[in-house]
Amino acid sequence: MSTAKLTIDLTALADNWRALDRLSESETGAVVKADGYGLGVAQVGKALAMAGARKFFVAQAEEGLALRRALGHGPEINVFSGHMAGDAELIRSADLIPMINSTDQLLRQVETLPGHVFGIQLDSGMNRLGMEPAEWAALRDIALAQRPPLVMSHLACADEPEHPMNAAQLQSFCDMTQGIDAPRSLAATGGILLGPAYHFDVTRPGIGLYGGLPFADAQTVVTLDLPVIQTRTVAAGETIGYGNTWTAQAETQVATVSGGYADGLLRAMGNASDAAFYHGDIRLPILGRVSMDLITVDVSSLSEPPESLRLLGDAQGVDTLADWAGTIGYEILTSLGARFERIYRS
Amino acid sequence: MSTAKLTIDLTALADNWRALDRLSESETGAVVKADGYGLGVAQVGKALAMAGARKFFVAQAEEGLALRRALGHGPEINVFSGHMAGDAELIRSADLIPMINSTDQLLRQVETLPGHVFGIQLDSGMNRLGMEPAEWAALRDIALAQRPPLVMSHLACADEPEHPMNAAQLQSFCDMTQGIDAPRSLAATGGILLGPAYHFDVTRPGIGLYGGLPFADAQTVVTLDLPVIQTRTVAAGETIGYGNTWTAQAETQVATVSGGYADGLLRAMGNASDAAFYHGDIRLPILGRVSMDLITVDVSSLSEPPESLRLLGDAQGVDTLADWAGTIGYEILTSLGARFERIYRS
Repeated sequence: MSTAKLTIDLTALADNWRALDRLSESETGAVVKADGYGLGVAQVGKALAMAGARKFFVAQAEEGLALRRALGHGPEINVFSGHMAGDAELIRSADLIPMINSTDQLLRQVETLPGHVFGIQLDSGMNRLGMEPAEWAALRDIALAQRPPLVMSHLACADEPEHPMNAAQLQSFCDMTQGIDAPRSLAATGGILLGPAYHFDVTRPGIGLYGGLPFADAQTVVTLDLPVIQTRTVAAGETIGYGNTWTAQAETQVATVSGGYADGLLRAMGNASDAAFYHGDIRLPILGRVSMDLITVDVSSLSEPPESLRLLGDAQGVDTLADWAGTIGYEILTSLGARFERIYRS
Repeated sequence: MSTAKLTIDLTALADNWRALDRLSESETGAVVKADGYGLGVAQVGKALAMAGARKFFVAQAEEGLALRRALGHGPEINVFSGHMAGDAELIRSADLIPMINSTDQLLRQVETLPGHVFGIQLDSGMNRLGMEPAEWAALRDIALAQRPPLVMSHLACADEPEHPMNAAQLQSFCDMTQGIDAPRSLAATGGILLGPAYHFDVTRPGIGLYGGLPFADAQTVVTLDLPVIQTRTVAAGETIGYGNTWTAQAETQVATVSGGYADGLLRAMGNASDAAFYHGDIRLPILGRVSMDLITVDVSSLSEPPESLRLLGDAQGVDTLADWAGTIGYEILTSLGARFERIYRS
């Protein structure tokens, strides 16, 4: 088996949801878009529903269908991209709640699915999804007459608590929703950590559930072990991998593991001088470039050739890999590859 | 439908194979690892078999099984990672040819699958996969007595024709294989372009088939169109997206498209000042950061709101996106996401 093992701790996932639920002065939902942040929407969704989540969020209607099949009837499934052309039958049959983003989407909704429930997404300043203030002012009475179960917006800078954008968006959201009866939602993980003023009626944690920053207290959800294909002795002066980017300064024991950028282990990691695997407590530096299917690792400090090496786990998490690759933990998670064997622990 | 459309031109793929076949002074195989470089191993494998390929290469035995199911009996399927512990039944039932990388793998092969065909992978200097010269010297007679259908190695710097590593690896490979009867293979796409001295008996093009560098004459295989969720007018001074990294200098029409780094559209692209989509012939700059499921684009130069925007196609290919993200076309291809609808043209 050259298949790497991605172990997903559903107990830790549920514990992270409960911890964020305790921090939320409101109902706590769960964001499971992008296939449950790459971990499998069916298993992740069921574990979160068991923990108590009743409001789920996905990016696309197609994802909502996959989640509905896993969860069955009952939990609410909200779709951030709203009602796209051609989505009516999907929204109806999977009982989804589109977050209506524009006048066009509202017209599409009432024309194709009259009487079907919908929510509203407002733009409070991020300029990415949702109705603008003027658009909302024109449609507000019509939309609210349909008793939407959620009116929401999204923060652009919630992972920087001191950023003035947070207060500006909060003010904008309050201005746009003042006096309405519908439940309101503004906060994802970062927004929960900003404090109760951001919580309103529903919070929508995503990354924190999966063990990523900005929720520093999250438990580790993901462990990734890559099998070793072979080990070799590399003499001083020899090079390793594409482009000869690494040269041995002394005799080095090198393990080649099965896994690479085709598995979402970003190639940019190979440029970081501190990128490493673990074997037990022993840190083992990555040598040279990350290939499509292979990574080479310095195992000189081990007493015998290892059978597998750990890239993600308690010793280093998704945010550490993200630092090496110049990105964020979210991208590490959602990139984790299709070739991995996924093992669920609960 | 917020699902993006990934169109894969199987005719262009087959034409690229034929073009590389004309350049090869030998039999031309095809590398279809990592799910056919992310494009679907079944469809890609069948199209290449129709074009005339008879020797296929995958990274892992599990990939070999998927390919065998698509191709049926006949074509050879070679596995670069060789014979890993637990692979025997898979190798036997799918009729795979493991490229044996080490003494350990050779012992595993002859113990668990006596008489089953295997090839040999040699390390000619990349120090990643394959037997070292001393190991090979000790095993050579035993291995060659089994009449391996292929003895191969891999070049570390073939995309840099002037790199002295190429000649060094060629010399090493010649030294290690001098006088043997078994067919030999050293060149992937880059090696084919280095010229006939590198071709031996079998070439193994990969990236060039899929339209990527270093095969500059490749036809475009991949087209990617992302649906527009909504468009909005952003006033001068307003910001867009996470971290407020982009500020409008003048009133700007902004489209939000469905697709992001969870679809393998690398987040690093968002830092490139020249990253863009296309609508027909009109180039449309990306604004701000790439989100998990969304990208924002300046559509001010269009006369009306577009329904979809093109990220990959004839106007810009995988190597252009790779430049923006500081990587190579290979990573762009193999990252292309699971949420896309894949449409095959032939």
